[in-house]
Amino acid sequence: MAITATEPTAVRAFGPGTALSCRECGERYELSPIFACQFCFGPLEVAYDFGDVTREEIESGPKNIWRYRSLLPVPTNVADLPNMNPGLTPLVRADRLAAELGLRSLHVKDDSANPTHSFKDRVVAIAVEAARTFGFTTLSCSSTGNLAGAVGAAAARAGFDSCVFIPAGLEEGKVVMAAVYGGKVVAIDGNYDDVNRFCSELIGDEAGESWGFTNVNLRPYYAEGSKTLAYEIAEQLGWRLPEQIVIPIASGSQLTKIDKGFQELVKVGLVEDRPYKVFGAQATGCSPVAKAWENGHDVIQPVKPDTIAKSLAIGNPADGPYVLDIATRTGGSVEHVGDDEIVDAIKLLARTEGIFAETAGGVTTGVLRKLVREGKLDPEAETVIVNTGDGLKTLNAVDSGVTATIKPSLAAFKAEGLA
Amino acid sequence: MAITATEPTAVRAFGPGTALSCRECGERYELSPIFACQFCFGPLEVAYDFGDVTREEIESGPKNIWRYRSLLPVPTNVADLPNMNPGLTPLVRADRLAAELGLRSLHVKDDSANPTHSFKDRVVAIAVEAARTFGFTTLSCSSTGNLAGAVGAAAARAGFDSCVFIPAGLEEGKVVMAAVYGGKVVAIDGNYDDVNRFCSELIGDEAGESWGFTNVNLRPYYAEGSKTLAYEIAEQLGWRLPEQIVIPIASGSQLTKIDKGFQELVKVGLVEDRPYKVFGAQATGCSPVAKAWENGHDVIQPVKPDTIAKSLAIGNPADGPYVLDIATRTGGSVEHVGDDEIVDAIKLLARTEGIFAETAGGVTTGVLRKLVREGKLDPEAETVIVNTGDGLKTLNAVDSGVTATIKPSLAAFKAEGLA
Repeated sequence: MAITATEPTAVRAFGPGTALSCRECGERYELSPIFACQFCFGPLEVAYDFGDVTREEIESGPKNIWRYRSLLPVPTNVADLPNMNPGLTPLVRADRLAAELGLRSLHVKDDSANPTHSFKDRVVAIAVEAARTFGFTTLSCSSTGNLAGAVGAAAARAGFDSCVFIPAGLEEGKVVMAAVYGGKVVAIDGNYDDVNRFCSELIGDEAGESWGFTNVNLRPYYAEGSKTLAYEIAEQLGWRLPEQIVIPIASGSQLTKIDKGFQELVKVGLVEDRPYKVFGAQATGCSPVAKAWENGHDVIQPVKPDTIAKSLAIGNPADGPYVLDIATRTGGSVEHVGDDEIVDAIKLLARTEGIFAETAGGVTTGVLRKLVREGKLDPEAETVIVNTGDGLKTLNAVDSGVTATIKPSLAAFKAEGLA
Repeated sequence: MAITATEPTAVRAFGPGTALSCRECGERYELSPIFACQFCFGPLEVAYDFGDVTREEIESGPKNIWRYRSLLPVPTNVADLPNMNPGLTPLVRADRLAAELGLRSLHVKDDSANPTHSFKDRVVAIAVEAARTFGFTTLSCSSTGNLAGAVGAAAARAGFDSCVFIPAGLEEGKVVMAAVYGGKVVAIDGNYDDVNRFCSELIGDEAGESWGFTNVNLRPYYAEGSKTLAYEIAEQLGWRLPEQIVIPIASGSQLTKIDKGFQELVKVGLVEDRPYKVFGAQATGCSPVAKAWENGHDVIQPVKPDTIAKSLAIGNPADGPYVLDIATRTGGSVEHVGDDEIVDAIKLLARTEGIFAETAGGVTTGVLRKLVREGKLDPEAETVIVNTGDGLKTLNAVDSGVTATIKPSLAAFKAEGLA
């Protein structure tokens, strides 16, 4: 299966992507629906041959992630294909939150603006194109919730069947959003790690052979979608890397791909090379990477998740070791906050910036506050935090409700002391 | 209060806006927080003196509604002020829905992509700027739900206090979204029309004198925000008016302002003048405008709403007569669909296009299908429908849930007949 050159057809279908390459041993493979190195079991990544990519080409492109198609493993005509077309979400200048925390410059990359209101639309958009190229007819995934909705929607838009797997007991908003697009939604008695193991089993079975699992056999393509967060942040800052960035950690893939995206922008000459620090954020109830960081370990000890931040509840994060490497290399760190702080941070972000984040956004905002408090973040440096999902999907996490219920009269209004 | 010229300061704060003008008798007033003509009680609208507006200027502007600031009553520096910056939502080419309905060309303008996931962010964005200019310190509204969330978020972003009024018994998602931004949320025992009457009372009282009610005393500014839907649709079609458009009706304001927006684009020379038909969509359980249309009346008989489409549940729609005028003038019509059809249409749109609409979007999609079925819509003409809100806010309307719950094993999966 290992090859040195790819066919012209494959090259066109994957844009600048030329091969899959093992992140551990460097072994190269043809662009195909595989995800682990057959020699060392390391994860496979897309390798590229980038041509000239200019700011002008990008700025005149579609107002979604396809403006960066010259840096992504997608068909060159991707903008004409049926796809959810996510991305180019707002980079919000968060002056009121910055003032409250004592920061000079803070932006929130608000990915709740994506079609199904989480960053998962980005990764699924790439996976759908790979699934189409490989001839899969069913789109699938193991999911903590957001991914299930993104896959359901993308399959509907592109005309695939879909069947998604979630742990039983997810938030209602996430279950309904996964099911409403008409595909199958199968709940697994167990946590996300159980769901993931089940999917790996299914993929080896004939029952799953026409199935594209976005985050399993399509993972090398899928994961590249997170690079677009880096591209957008840099473009929206005026083609500049931020000095500090805080990113939530589930599998750790998003954080590693944002770092990869920044590196690529430097490599192709779209931004100036300058130091940046990457900070990872976890919920205390599922903080295997933060714990490894605290203890100075380079191996991740899996945990059994117990946190309201269900979209981050991956107890055995595949990219955890790479997250540790990046935090070390850039001078950042990996921190965690408890459930009470998560809820408080959701409200802080809502109250100061009008952004209603899901629990994962509470984790990121809470860790930002903790980093400032503990002096680990430079309050003078240009800082970005990533909000990956929408509060409407985790309604039960906040106890917000009506201030009062009254009869429709001024007297009743004044009697409640509301005037 | 009637004047013939406005001060230079006022003109700058409201961009091309020059005065308020009575829609009924044409009497002109200074740009101020008033909403009804003191002579004939007609609604006041912003009058403009548009300068040269070019496609190039718009296309190089911000990727939100402020790209059209030369056509809106907002400060010329609006893009630098703290605002939710809504708009430039996707115009989705809906080929799969079109095929299912037998239409040649269909697009969905998906306004669930706005910051708080409804079109209300557009109107509130304009109202916030007017509130700032007039020196109000509290932002308020009467709301069927979506507006409350948009006002709460916008007030938080811009640093206003907020107090919003909703009918008791709204969907949980809408209540939480209104409350989470930290402002006051007051539920009124009654329906939307009761809430609206209460707000008119409050506005005349000293308790409300520093309050900007987005849809009462700021209504002339607020309502202009809906014009941006027309601007975006035309720009996204390649600077062309659609031939047919289906728009939901609550107060009727959105429909009348989309029509106004199309007319303005023709007037300033940004698009070619060509005929278009405007169709209004209501839920059968609150269809006073559709009933008037059916019966050939030009007066609207108020109704007591009883429908799952709560965001459209305005029994006494202020702009109803203007909607009838526009449907007549353009050769469109006003139709209604029942609650079962609304739910079915939500699922149809989700299944074919991956768009999860709230009940109002179900009304629009359901009416589209009805219009095609009854031969009232030309299947060959370029058609656009407007989805104004997000399914996550009306979860209970759809009964979607998991297909099955299983143990994490292939055997269990196959036993359920899912393979």
